[in-house]
Amino acid sequence: MIADPSLPADVELAALAAAVVEACVARGLTIATAESCTGGLVGHLLTDVPGASMCYLGGVISYANALKEGLLGVDGHLLVVHGAVSGEVAAAMAEGARRRIGTDISVAVTGIAGPDGGTAAKPVGLTYIACAGVAGTVVHERRWTGDRRANKRASAGDALAMALAAADATGRRAAY
Amino acid sequence: MIADPSLPADVELAALAAAVVEACVARGLTIATAESCTGGLVGHLLTDVPGASMCYLGGVISYANALKEGLLGVDGHLLVVHGAVSGEVAAAMAEGARRRIGTDISVAVTGIAGPDGGTAAKPVGLTYIACAGVAGTVVHERRWTGDRRANKRASAGDALAMALAAADATGRRAAY
Repeated sequence: MIADPSLPADVELAALAAAVVEACVARGLTIATAESCTGGLVGHLLTDVPGASMCYLGGVISYANALKEGLLGVDGHLLVVHGAVSGEVAAAMAEGARRRIGTDISVAVTGIAGPDGGTAAKPVGLTYIACAGVAGTVVHERRWTGDRRANKRASAGDALAMALAAADATGRRAAY
Repeated sequence: MIADPSLPADVELAALAAAVVEACVARGLTIATAESCTGGLVGHLLTDVPGASMCYLGGVISYANALKEGLLGVDGHLLVVHGAVSGEVAAAMAEGARRRIGTDISVAVTGIAGPDGGTAAKPVGLTYIACAGVAGTVVHERRWTGDRRANKRASAGDALAMALAAADATGRRAAY
């Protein structure tokens, strides 16, 4: 049971990650991550699952904006116009990771984990989570209300749930 | 107190990460990560620390070997000759991350977390952790004896300790 949806328990995050690995491996799908505010947590959760190397190829922790451009190929124009914490940049991060790492599915997270960095327009907790797959890209806007650690974990849970949905919606790869 | 050195407690990993961020920020140093078997855990621990963005620029989770070459610039020859789990590749991952991300310090981890993937020559638990800094690159060989999750955490603790030592040994940047 999750009392506060913004604070998933470690055991629930672990179960979600295991479900993502299982769903990907069952279908012969590969997955990548592109993380800003979660800082590697999604990759960490996936790689706690034995056998994750059968589907998880890796990812980029693009904490600084320069890495969003340099390592993920996010258009600098998007960063200027929409800001790093935006649905447009989340989608571009996911699509860049999927293209550069060459996977079937990718998830991306960009947000303001706190306690600093918030503004009136973009408060602490505002987070965009994107999942790119064979059917296109989906973006969630979330406004978490926890502290830094809770917001990171809530975002990771959301990213894993989106990856699971994308895997479940994808047919078995023709190549397998 | 750590009863088993291969299994640092979460609170001890968090304290180490906070010390790394404090040491880097105090000296105006930047840091990057290049993670294989830890899968993002080092980045996650660093970014749990408020203010980590003042020193941590990001990193690469090069779980698949192709990403060690593509995103970190590791020479494919090293992978063939020494294998992905080797001191030579750990050093090249750290140096690649430092050069491509443009930081003062970088840490890299490559190992066999288990339960699968071990051989007689390279058993489960064998892990190389490298730290590249202004004074050069240091590599540790470790042979952890825990399970997958414990081995990941032990490696992350070692990487953070190496980063802390590198930061402490580095003078304040002239530019600051």
